[in-house]
Amino acid sequence: MGLDSRVKCCPDGLVTDRRRRIKVLDCTIRDGGICNQWNFDHGVVRRVFEALAESGIDYMEIGYKTQSGLVDPDSVGPWRFCEEADLQEVVNSGPLKIAAMVDVGRITTQEIIPAADSSINAIRIATYAHQMDEALRLLEHCLECGYETFMNVMAVSTLGPNDVDEFLQQLAGSGIHNVAIVDSFGALYPYHVRYLVHKYMNYLGESIKVGVHFHNNQQQAFANSIAAIDEGVDFVDATLHGIGRAAGNCPLELLLFYLDNPRYDARPILDLVEEFASMRNELRWGYHLPYAISGFFNIHPRTAMDRMARADRYQVREMFETLSKPNKT
Amino acid sequence: MGLDSRVKCCPDGLVTDRRRRIKVLDCTIRDGGICNQWNFDHGVVRRVFEALAESGIDYMEIGYKTQSGLVDPDSVGPWRFCEEADLQEVVNSGPLKIAAMVDVGRITTQEIIPAADSSINAIRIATYAHQMDEALRLLEHCLECGYETFMNVMAVSTLGPNDVDEFLQQLAGSGIHNVAIVDSFGALYPYHVRYLVHKYMNYLGESIKVGVHFHNNQQQAFANSIAAIDEGVDFVDATLHGIGRAAGNCPLELLLFYLDNPRYDARPILDLVEEFASMRNELRWGYHLPYAISGFFNIHPRTAMDRMARADRYQVREMFETLSKPNKT
Repeated sequence: MGLDSRVKCCPDGLVTDRRRRIKVLDCTIRDGGICNQWNFDHGVVRRVFEALAESGIDYMEIGYKTQSGLVDPDSVGPWRFCEEADLQEVVNSGPLKIAAMVDVGRITTQEIIPAADSSINAIRIATYAHQMDEALRLLEHCLECGYETFMNVMAVSTLGPNDVDEFLQQLAGSGIHNVAIVDSFGALYPYHVRYLVHKYMNYLGESIKVGVHFHNNQQQAFANSIAAIDEGVDFVDATLHGIGRAAGNCPLELLLFYLDNPRYDARPILDLVEEFASMRNELRWGYHLPYAISGFFNIHPRTAMDRMARADRYQVREMFETLSKPNKT
Repeated sequence: MGLDSRVKCCPDGLVTDRRRRIKVLDCTIRDGGICNQWNFDHGVVRRVFEALAESGIDYMEIGYKTQSGLVDPDSVGPWRFCEEADLQEVVNSGPLKIAAMVDVGRITTQEIIPAADSSINAIRIATYAHQMDEALRLLEHCLECGYETFMNVMAVSTLGPNDVDEFLQQLAGSGIHNVAIVDSFGALYPYHVRYLVHKYMNYLGESIKVGVHFHNNQQQAFANSIAAIDEGVDFVDATLHGIGRAAGNCPLELLLFYLDNPRYDARPILDLVEEFASMRNELRWGYHLPYAISGFFNIHPRTAMDRMARADRYQVREMFETLSKPNKT
């Protein structure tokens, strides 16, 4: 039974079959890891891998590759580094592709080994627009190493339209395989998303896939994903129970319900809900006013995250008033 | 500064000024009361009234009028009845209009006194489509009593398209002032909403206002409100921090951020966030998988609410599998 027929008051066929062409990238461990410094034990990560594989998800982003010496290994969990030994304990080869993120400026090319020698299939390069030259050098190395590549240009909501044009033009001829529209601050509404999807698709052309990575500060991560799907993107990022930095991401289970694609089976994902729900009280992703306000004002969630660690976290009027002053926005 | 200019990567003017014509109905105490049997003390309700008045909100739905003898007054709080003595303790006259809901079949016309003698300005009639004849008799009495009137035809997602046509035709000539599209089960996606808004507006014509009342089971209450605003509705229901039955409603604060209307001031609302956030752990509205699943399958949240009271609330695979069977949906 198709999804449309569940809602009886509307005829079937109100949306196109663009839902059926979406590929899904789960970034539970990578983006969720920002909540707990990547301290997921190997058992959790293996269970996530197995559930995603059984569900037919396309990509699992399992963490960051990070330059050695940059972060104290005793202060974070193993998915901050994604060493081969750790990966081999939790993943098997199969149709579920393994992705790792690298931050421009926090990795050296020497530490990215040939894809043939790695459990990693895809590298996601996270960059700010002003670092694009360095991002492209990193991309060149990743392509030489044989990886499928993604470029996540962060915080697009803070750039001027011309800056977006510029980096898209650079990416169009770069050899990159996938580019994500990244709403790092949870600032976008669906009308922004529709505009950006068309811009990205127009600049990047047929050979580069366009996807989305949304944050849920204003309860728009899933809704913005729906808007993007409707406009024709190729892939969507999501996480189990919406875990992710600050308010979190698009919940994977809601996305699978919506996609209505027999290729995906939501049930193995549902088996993990209890385990992730139990983390939510401590890690505090989800709908909280400090995140909603930082999203609305289009600023980094850093100050909201600091506030969430305090007892007066919900005394938000002064936060709102400070950000409302014209010179602060 | 307009809202559009906060998100720098998109030009201003991507949406119309339909946001500026929206009126806001707060149903914190009425729908939120379903979570705690309307056991808000008078101080809370007075603080809500004062904040809404100061914020410039248009309507406050303060509870239900209920037939005496139907519900044991010792088992529920005063906002299940909205007696005049209770109302007078918490509201003052002013531009903020007071609304009360009546359920068809749970009120007699004798218990609805003339508007001139009441603190209530507007009656919202909640009905199922099959009770429409009785709803229209109740409406006639409310109009004679001098109230502004609303009709909330519940669970529209479960009706066939012809049933929707039929009740809309009945309402078109009824004298009703406002009709809400009511997604009682949290089943609708934005594409359903766009379809329904046009249908309601086409049938009801220029003289009847159309609004929306959404539930947040699939994190779509605010997103669906945005879709409805974009299509031209006149009013939107929302609640403080999204409190409401099961997953709750559209959060009032997010709605005010979006409306970008200088007529509304979000700050008095923000002062109440801490008080309402403190109720959330006990009353458990918000994003929880049992509600997401009941919303997706377009069923009453009753079983999900029962499940949420149990320790195994997040063991949801069997719930999903049962509802997936064709004869159960």
